[in-house]
Amino acid sequence: MATSMKKHPIRIGFLGGGQLARMMALAAAPLGVEPWVLSPHKTDPAAQVTAFWMQGDPNNLRDLKQFFNKVDVVTFESEFFEADLMIKASQAARVKVFPRPQVMAKIQDRWTQKQALEKAGVPTARYYKVDNYQQALAALDNLGGSMVLKKRRMGYDGYGTYIIRKSQDLHSIKDLINQTPYGFIAEEFIPFQRELALMIGRSQIKSPEKEKWCLFPLVETFQEKARCLWVKGPVTSKKKPPLVRSLKKLLNQLNYVGMMGVELFETKNGDLIVNELAPRVHNSGHYSQDALVEDQFTAHIKAILGLSLDPPKLVDKGFAMWNLLGEGKQVAKWQSPKKVHVHWYGKAESRVGRKMGHINATATSSKQALARVKKARSLFKI
Amino acid sequence: MATSMKKHPIRIGFLGGGQLARMMALAAAPLGVEPWVLSPHKTDPAAQVTAFWMQGDPNNLRDLKQFFNKVDVVTFESEFFEADLMIKASQAARVKVFPRPQVMAKIQDRWTQKQALEKAGVPTARYYKVDNYQQALAALDNLGGSMVLKKRRMGYDGYGTYIIRKSQDLHSIKDLINQTPYGFIAEEFIPFQRELALMIGRSQIKSPEKEKWCLFPLVETFQEKARCLWVKGPVTSKKKPPLVRSLKKLLNQLNYVGMMGVELFETKNGDLIVNELAPRVHNSGHYSQDALVEDQFTAHIKAILGLSLDPPKLVDKGFAMWNLLGEGKQVAKWQSPKKVHVHWYGKAESRVGRKMGHINATATSSKQALARVKKARSLFKI
Repeated sequence: MATSMKKHPIRIGFLGGGQLARMMALAAAPLGVEPWVLSPHKTDPAAQVTAFWMQGDPNNLRDLKQFFNKVDVVTFESEFFEADLMIKASQAARVKVFPRPQVMAKIQDRWTQKQALEKAGVPTARYYKVDNYQQALAALDNLGGSMVLKKRRMGYDGYGTYIIRKSQDLHSIKDLINQTPYGFIAEEFIPFQRELALMIGRSQIKSPEKEKWCLFPLVETFQEKARCLWVKGPVTSKKKPPLVRSLKKLLNQLNYVGMMGVELFETKNGDLIVNELAPRVHNSGHYSQDALVEDQFTAHIKAILGLSLDPPKLVDKGFAMWNLLGEGKQVAKWQSPKKVHVHWYGKAESRVGRKMGHINATATSSKQALARVKKARSLFKI
Repeated sequence: MATSMKKHPIRIGFLGGGQLARMMALAAAPLGVEPWVLSPHKTDPAAQVTAFWMQGDPNNLRDLKQFFNKVDVVTFESEFFEADLMIKASQAARVKVFPRPQVMAKIQDRWTQKQALEKAGVPTARYYKVDNYQQALAALDNLGGSMVLKKRRMGYDGYGTYIIRKSQDLHSIKDLINQTPYGFIAEEFIPFQRELALMIGRSQIKSPEKEKWCLFPLVETFQEKARCLWVKGPVTSKKKPPLVRSLKKLLNQLNYVGMMGVELFETKNGDLIVNELAPRVHNSGHYSQDALVEDQFTAHIKAILGLSLDPPKLVDKGFAMWNLLGEGKQVAKWQSPKKVHVHWYGKAESRVGRKMGHINATATSSKQALARVKKARSLFKI
């Protein structure tokens, strides 16, 4: 509640040691938080920015229990952790996790995620549950001869996703379909104009209603080899208000707490269709560190602590973000770029395609901001 | 130089574990820096936000040497460390310190600081060197019967400063004057309208000239019991351009690298007179974390790494900062404030007057921003 007093310091536990946990920990410290990190390696990006690191595996119950006993509240950087273990540790230590593990589990599974979207009236592609090859064939028929087949669990950045344009495509992965645990969903193929995204946040705070929500601008995202390369914005769309109404309904139905990433397709006629949800801070929201008066990491921490969320005012008219994807160089090097903000993740080893950092810029237009980060990218050898 | 490649990661050593080192370390991480901290206690504010903490005393040569061997470059949060020890450790480990310890030493001593200001033509109060009571009497006579007597070394936040309005005032501290090592300076008493401050930064980068400098807006600072209570800005002054020209000359003459805090008096007729310099990031510059597109901590790190400095664009028309000074409460608590940014320092123990954190706000005017942080301050029990 708005009037409840927070103690200082408060200990937040972050599950996972990657760049998302790192940037959450960096944002948490000024909010009077001791950022505790549970991750396997001392050199993990998040482990480097705190004195409160515990070595362990977020999918190991003993490690989780020990970690939960050290902190006041827990959040996570990946929706692929085991929800049931998190629930057990949470109950044993009487420490809450936000977003709630039950909600994480629902979103983690593409089928239950689709059901939740449908229930809240969020626009999304037609879909069928597919547990075997026969069901896949039936779905292909129902969806008009082309579809997208996605593993229900553990798919990300294009992994576990199969574009099916004809029945032969399906036949060639018959064994995979029949043998994959948890199965698939088959989705209508959406011919999109461009990919968009937005971040929406909901705080634990009960009232007033307007301080409970945090809605970032719509952005365009560009993928190369199924990995996000850049983001620019803000993007305007007449379809944003109804989309947001349905998303708020979804978050209320889920009793969601924290920031959520929403990936969208924009069709030729301007419709916005939700592709998928990420129950956490998200790569498409990194621009907020320099383009908004409050970034997604700070907003996420405030949301899980039950603090008021502020309207995310823009610092300039346009903004852009460019991912620093690894080229496999032995030693990363860079020249001084101008009028951009560099965010390294502290990863010692560069691998091809690995997210090593990102560059943010603001400008008088999103186009100009994008040109700025693109130019800056050429100054990095990573 | 602008075209030189920086390796990644780079290790910066921070001497001191207080809030300034903490905020520098937090700002350094995104710049691809491993922030190493040398401080006495594991619970020190800066020690909490890094995995690279070393227990030790920045005034102990053995600790310094060991620490310097771990890092690529060193900076500090206080100008009161021993310059000669820093120089020895720097030479032994072949690691540079910025700002250079020789420059730090010159500014640390109010007499040599005054000489440097005078040499560069920076407007400052008339002064005399005072090593004993007789010289103090002579200075009082020369300065027209009133003066400010300041210890040459280790004075801050009013400590070591004596306002002398009549010869009796001087007589009452006769023994102190005669016994203080390093002596005093006597300064003309400046009847000021208000106190101002500004941050100026100079990067190691050789060219282009405009990327070498970083000049923040003028701000008004308000002191209570000789401690900074709040800051607001920007403040406009016709005397800023000539002041800045002289400050640039000063920094060039000193071959200064890093951010520098400049405390000023504004007289009734609008003259700007330098009161004192701080060769480091400064409390009067904390507003920059939320009011400028790049804060003083990031700019300081970029300056010592030889990166280009960007013009410090304002996020909104006005801004303010309010220090969270301790009230000695056993457990600090706070309610959710709105439209402000909270920056806690992670200090467990509150003492009366201790800087526990600060609150920043931006608004359409500095007055409105000040009202916002003042209101937010009432939500803290510290």
